[in-house]
Amino acid sequence: MTDTDQPRNLSQKPVIILVGPQMAENIGMVARAMANFGLSELRLVSPRGGWPKKGAHSAASGATHILKDAALYDTAEEAVADLQFVFATTARERGQMKRVYAPAEAALKTIERNTAGQRVGIMFGRERTGLENDEVALADAIITFPVDPDFSSLNLAQAVLLVGYEWYKNVTKEALPFDGEPQTPPANKEMVLSFFEYLESELEAANFYPPDKKPTMTRNMRDIFYRLEMTEQDVRTLRGAVRVLVETRRSRKSQIN
Amino acid sequence: MTDTDQPRNLSQKPVIILVGPQMAENIGMVARAMANFGLSELRLVSPRGGWPKKGAHSAASGATHILKDAALYDTAEEAVADLQFVFATTARERGQMKRVYAPAEAALKTIERNTAGQRVGIMFGRERTGLENDEVALADAIITFPVDPDFSSLNLAQAVLLVGYEWYKNVTKEALPFDGEPQTPPANKEMVLSFFEYLESELEAANFYPPDKKPTMTRNMRDIFYRLEMTEQDVRTLRGAVRVLVETRRSRKSQIN
Repeated sequence: MTDTDQPRNLSQKPVIILVGPQMAENIGMVARAMANFGLSELRLVSPRGGWPKKGAHSAASGATHILKDAALYDTAEEAVADLQFVFATTARERGQMKRVYAPAEAALKTIERNTAGQRVGIMFGRERTGLENDEVALADAIITFPVDPDFSSLNLAQAVLLVGYEWYKNVTKEALPFDGEPQTPPANKEMVLSFFEYLESELEAANFYPPDKKPTMTRNMRDIFYRLEMTEQDVRTLRGAVRVLVETRRSRKSQIN
Repeated sequence: MTDTDQPRNLSQKPVIILVGPQMAENIGMVARAMANFGLSELRLVSPRGGWPKKGAHSAASGATHILKDAALYDTAEEAVADLQFVFATTARERGQMKRVYAPAEAALKTIERNTAGQRVGIMFGRERTGLENDEVALADAIITFPVDPDFSSLNLAQAVLLVGYEWYKNVTKEALPFDGEPQTPPANKEMVLSFFEYLESELEAANFYPPDKKPTMTRNMRDIFYRLEMTEQDVRTLRGAVRVLVETRRSRKSQIN
C-alpha cells in the first residue's frame, strides 16, 4: 500500500464485545475474523463456562494473540463503561427508538468517531438468543445486517467478519470528510448512565411515571438522550438544569421546616 | 419496501462455482452463506471424494435446497461454458494482466451484466491451494479481498459470504429488515420554540442563569435540543418531564401558603 492508502489513526479501532458467548470455537473464529480485518481489541462478557475456554485457541489458529489480550467482564455495562459510542448488533426489531445502521454506514460512523479520538465498541450477543433488551438498551445505535429475510441467520464469526470487513475497507481509503464535531469529548457510558439514574430518580420522586409504565417510559426517554450522543458538556448542562429545577423545590421545603 | 426499492432482475443472479472443494462442511456452509444473501445457483467442479458428500447436508442446515439443486462438472471450463462474465477469486497476484476488483466493485459489475441479461459466475478455489493458473485463465477478471496482509486467509464460506453480501447489499440498495425511524413526525418550529420558551422561563425562575450569561447559555442549550431533531412525541415527553419536576415545587409551595 502506498502512503495515501495507509489507514489513518489505526491505533484507534473499534472494540469487539462478545456478550455471553457460548462456544469456544466461535470465540476463536471471531478472533480470526478480527485479524483478517486488522482488529485486535476483544472484550468477553461472561463467556459461558468461564475463560479461558478449551477449544478457542485452536479455532483461532494464528489469531491467538487476540485471545491472549482479550479482556474479561462480568456485565455488558462494565464492558462499555469507558466507551463513547456503542453499537448493538441485532437481527430483529426490538421495540426501541434507536437509530439503525447497516454495517457500511456503521463503519463510517465508527471511523468518524475514532478519528476524533473517541472509543467505539460493537456488541454481539449470544449464539442462540442474541443480546438481552437491557444490553441493547446500553447502546447508542443498532447495527443490523442486510440479509435475505427468508434466511437471515448469520453465525457469530460471520457477523463480526462483515462488520470488520466494512471497517477495514473504509478505513484504508482516502480521508473521509469531517463534520463539525462538538468541542468536548462524548460522555462515556458510566457518565451517561449516572445522569439517567439521577434524572429518573427525580422523575420518580415527582410521580412522573404512571403505575406499570415506568420501564417503557424510562427506556423511551433514555433512547431520546442516546440519539443526542451527548458530550461531557451536554451531560453537565442537562444535569445542571435538572438539579436547578428540582432543588429550588428542595430549598423552599427546607426553608419552611 | 416500495417498488423503487425492489431489487432489479433478481431472477438473474451470479452463479457460485466451487472448484475442487475438499470438505463437505465447507460446501454446506457455502450453501448457507449463499442463502443468507439471496443466491441460489451453485456449481461444483470435481468435489474431492465425489458428490453428494456426507456432512454437507447437515452443515447446510436450512439451505439444503441449494445443495439439492447444485450442478456437477468435471472441469472448470465446462462449468463456465454458458456464462458471459466470470470472476476468479484469488488471494495472491498471479502474474496475469486481468483487471482486479474488490468485492464491492465486482458486485456492481455483476449487477450491470445481470441487468443486461447476461450470466455471471464467480469461481472459488480449493481450501488449501486455491485455483490453478489454468482455471484463473478462464476468467474475465479477478476478485481479491481487502484483508489485512498480515492475516489474509479467509475460509471458503467466508469468501462466498463477502461476495454474496456485497451483491445483495447493492442489488437491494441496502433494504434493511427494519429501521428505527421515530413513529411521530418531527416537531415543527412553533412547537420547538414553545418548548424552549417554557423550559427557559422555568430555569430563569429557578435562578439557573448567572448574570450576563443567559444569552450564551440559552443558545447552547437550544443547540443541544436542535441536535436531537425532536419529534412531536419527544417534545411532549421532555415538556412533561420538566413540568413534573417543577410543579411538584409549585404544589408544595401552594400547600404551605
